[in-house]
Amino acid sequence: MAKDKDKKQELIKNPKGTRDWSGEDVDLLEDILAQISRVFRRHGAKKLDTPVFEREEVLKGKYGEDSKLIYDLKDQGGELLSLRYDLTVPFARWLAMNANVKNYKRFAISKVYRRDQPAIAKGRMREFYQCDIDFAGASDAMIADSEVIGIVVEVFESLEWTGRYTIKLNDRRILDGLFEVCGVPEDKIRTISSAVDKLDKSPWEEVKKEMVETKGLDEAVADKIRTYVTRKGGKDLLEELKKDEALMGNAKAKQGIEEMDTLMEYLTAWNALDKISFDLSLARGLDYYTGIIYEVVTEGSAPVIADGAEVAKELHKQGKKEKKVLDEDEDRSNDPSVGIGSVAAGGRYDHLVERFRPNADLPCVGVSFGVDRIFSITKARIAKGEKFTYISSNAPDVYVMAFGGGGFSGMAKERIEITKILLDAGLKVEFTYKKKPKPQVQFKNAETAGAPFAVILGEDEQAKGEVRVKEMGLPDGHPEKEGVLVKIPDLGAEVSRRVEAKKLVPKTENLTVS
Amino acid sequence: MAKDKDKKQELIKNPKGTRDWSGEDVDLLEDILAQISRVFRRHGAKKLDTPVFEREEVLKGKYGEDSKLIYDLKDQGGELLSLRYDLTVPFARWLAMNANVKNYKRFAISKVYRRDQPAIAKGRMREFYQCDIDFAGASDAMIADSEVIGIVVEVFESLEWTGRYTIKLNDRRILDGLFEVCGVPEDKIRTISSAVDKLDKSPWEEVKKEMVETKGLDEAVADKIRTYVTRKGGKDLLEELKKDEALMGNAKAKQGIEEMDTLMEYLTAWNALDKISFDLSLARGLDYYTGIIYEVVTEGSAPVIADGAEVAKELHKQGKKEKKVLDEDEDRSNDPSVGIGSVAAGGRYDHLVERFRPNADLPCVGVSFGVDRIFSITKARIAKGEKFTYISSNAPDVYVMAFGGGGFSGMAKERIEITKILLDAGLKVEFTYKKKPKPQVQFKNAETAGAPFAVILGEDEQAKGEVRVKEMGLPDGHPEKEGVLVKIPDLGAEVSRRVEAKKLVPKTENLTVS
Repeated sequence: MAKDKDKKQELIKNPKGTRDWSGEDVDLLEDILAQISRVFRRHGAKKLDTPVFEREEVLKGKYGEDSKLIYDLKDQGGELLSLRYDLTVPFARWLAMNANVKNYKRFAISKVYRRDQPAIAKGRMREFYQCDIDFAGASDAMIADSEVIGIVVEVFESLEWTGRYTIKLNDRRILDGLFEVCGVPEDKIRTISSAVDKLDKSPWEEVKKEMVETKGLDEAVADKIRTYVTRKGGKDLLEELKKDEALMGNAKAKQGIEEMDTLMEYLTAWNALDKISFDLSLARGLDYYTGIIYEVVTEGSAPVIADGAEVAKELHKQGKKEKKVLDEDEDRSNDPSVGIGSVAAGGRYDHLVERFRPNADLPCVGVSFGVDRIFSITKARIAKGEKFTYISSNAPDVYVMAFGGGGFSGMAKERIEITKILLDAGLKVEFTYKKKPKPQVQFKNAETAGAPFAVILGEDEQAKGEVRVKEMGLPDGHPEKEGVLVKIPDLGAEVSRRVEAKKLVPKTENLTVS
Repeated sequence: MAKDKDKKQELIKNPKGTRDWSGEDVDLLEDILAQISRVFRRHGAKKLDTPVFEREEVLKGKYGEDSKLIYDLKDQGGELLSLRYDLTVPFARWLAMNANVKNYKRFAISKVYRRDQPAIAKGRMREFYQCDIDFAGASDAMIADSEVIGIVVEVFESLEWTGRYTIKLNDRRILDGLFEVCGVPEDKIRTISSAVDKLDKSPWEEVKKEMVETKGLDEAVADKIRTYVTRKGGKDLLEELKKDEALMGNAKAKQGIEEMDTLMEYLTAWNALDKISFDLSLARGLDYYTGIIYEVVTEGSAPVIADGAEVAKELHKQGKKEKKVLDEDEDRSNDPSVGIGSVAAGGRYDHLVERFRPNADLPCVGVSFGVDRIFSITKARIAKGEKFTYISSNAPDVYVMAFGGGGFSGMAKERIEITKILLDAGLKVEFTYKKKPKPQVQFKNAETAGAPFAVILGEDEQAKGEVRVKEMGLPDGHPEKEGVLVKIPDLGAEVSRRVEAKKLVPKTENLTVS
């Protein structure tokens, strides 16, 4: 019997590393997604919505050693399928299928799937939202690239994050060029690049040790790399590099540096230059980048919110037993100074579409926003009382009720008729699903739902074609404390007017953090 | 070599029975989803977004013989998972997990997965959207139920489908009661119910044959059933049944009939009574319904649009070789008189949550909209020139360009600056990613993007702090054919004003059907 009960308990949970989005969380999430997609649309991006799974071959060989994190579907006959790992590869597959598309600005908002060890506190989930914008097609140097960075700034401005983030910026060509100049052998460039990428969470000595001891790099070469990759700045750093004859003698680095100069000019025009940090240690994990790369980090350590009782329990259970992190690209959160890790990242990838269609010649540049992390930080920010402008609210505008004495019918049909009138005026309306509800029950329901107004039916008023409109929570003594009588034909317009007027009063409530 | 090329071709397709939503299709889909969720929110529903997969046990034993259509994930260690089959069971799982929830109005918009034989022309896909609203918690008889039907009417009104659909309505209690009255043995009720449910696509004789020959029902009993299940109507049919002493002598049927009377009273208040057809042949496939059931069918056979080249090819390949339909519940499309099949369906299910949490006592009623089918019919309707009010448009509001003579710099940075000014005014803006684009290229790009306005930079105007604002496509001789000069500080406001004014002119273009 006890065993049977345990079995029932077992059933009712969501899969590990996933969450249900509900209540205030889903509203805030929707607000964030709406803000981001509004920015994307302003820049001319069109939505693309691809299936949650792809044919196995489409994903195969695109993610390096992270391929082991891909979820496969069971072979139940027919095609072998895998859940999407990101939104970039499905976009490249779509571009390859649509050979007539020569230019495309696409955005996508979808969940992606990684069979990683979940670490809720680090914002690492198995199912999480990504929100991407990518420009496919020719662009003269850095024009489209600069627009993507302009979009990053606009997105975080729209989320009122001003001053809370930095866009780390580098270029694969500068990085590869400086490795060549320092004397890194051709075949070690990618692996040394990966080591350098760890400088945001490890001290130089550790990274050097990896280069020299694990990866067999000459110590003098490593020391020379240090003189570059510990540098970050803005135009000043760029000016220094331009005077570096060794570096400017390398064709790749020279092109990267010159285009970085162009980029910074354009970033001034996008009013984005002060948000960037030109950071020679930024390398990014994925192989397919071919030019500019960037990653958005939050400044200071943002408190992390564990969402929902289930994930909190999960976290507790895991304790310190977490296995070694597989997804290096996502794991920038060990160092408290970078808080929850990167909240957006991307770059230029000019040859990915060619993996699906040879000679496709569709250079791309884009950025992916990590919406779950942006949500957690925004929620924590609101909990601390920081400013956030809500777009949406779930509360009804008005609650319809009916009062009466002995022998009162409950006026269920009449409440529906009044509800319908208010709905047709575009208002959000609720009422109590009881035939004869008590007044105090209806008031309590209205309060619980958060309705700012009530429309109250009574048999006497009804006979005169009137109902009572009452603002909830008015203080005693207020002239309209008992509400005002309104003729039913005027009801929709009158309640709409009052709801609109009330919306103009600034909202002060904060999200409750559970 | 040829083989290698074939292999490349093989790679670039989306999985069978799925589609990519892009271009005008995704805009129309988003408009439909926005309209539906706006209606849901007006009725106080809150969004719930659950994971795409559930633990295998959660789905097991919930869908009868359709369980074989569930997609399972490969066992890669850890939990055994399956893709969601609908949105109802995940909602019930969530309710069971959140024992504090006694009342909830939830809506959900998500894709669901069925490993069925795809039949694009019938709107049967392996991945498709559902859009559900469900009310959990106590309601006096038919109050919440009537609101769900009110919502169905509002949804189709918001989609401008007036007069194109019928809500078929029945009650499981009436149906079960009449089977008892006719003499159907207890253990045959569900199977005879399933046979009756086929009356919308098969003639009576065939259904009778199934009852008598396959299911062993007494012929006289079948003939008696016929006298009921061939009847449909409205209040008239209800009045007839109320006079049927045999039926009113059955407790279940009596309760169903009396509550149907209450329902019709409330439906009058919702202004929904004329949309329903009380249809004694409606039975619905799923076992878990306990009261009212409904299904929305389109009137006349709506032309069906195959979406995308890939699915068209798929369709062609399949030809007549389609295997027997497994998902009876979804397959109402053989009879041309019901067109694409049901576009929404639902009912009351008072005991599903108890499957996950005994004694949960959370009665539910809800409806699920088949968005892919609604999309196909709406698209066909627009193609025929019928009215549809677009909410959104992908076209930019304004295209920024620069013209100049020999030695012209291209003004890339200046174009970005002007773009940024217009974006900050909330406008949708695009420009050409060329350093020195030719005027005709920029004009062509503006036209292709569908921008109604251009802002044109020139070096002389720039020197005076001005740009030219030009409405695209004005006829020769129009006083503003060459555009008007605007001071840069006034630009955002001036272009916004013109864009708004232009939006007031009714849109006449139709979606191109590809």
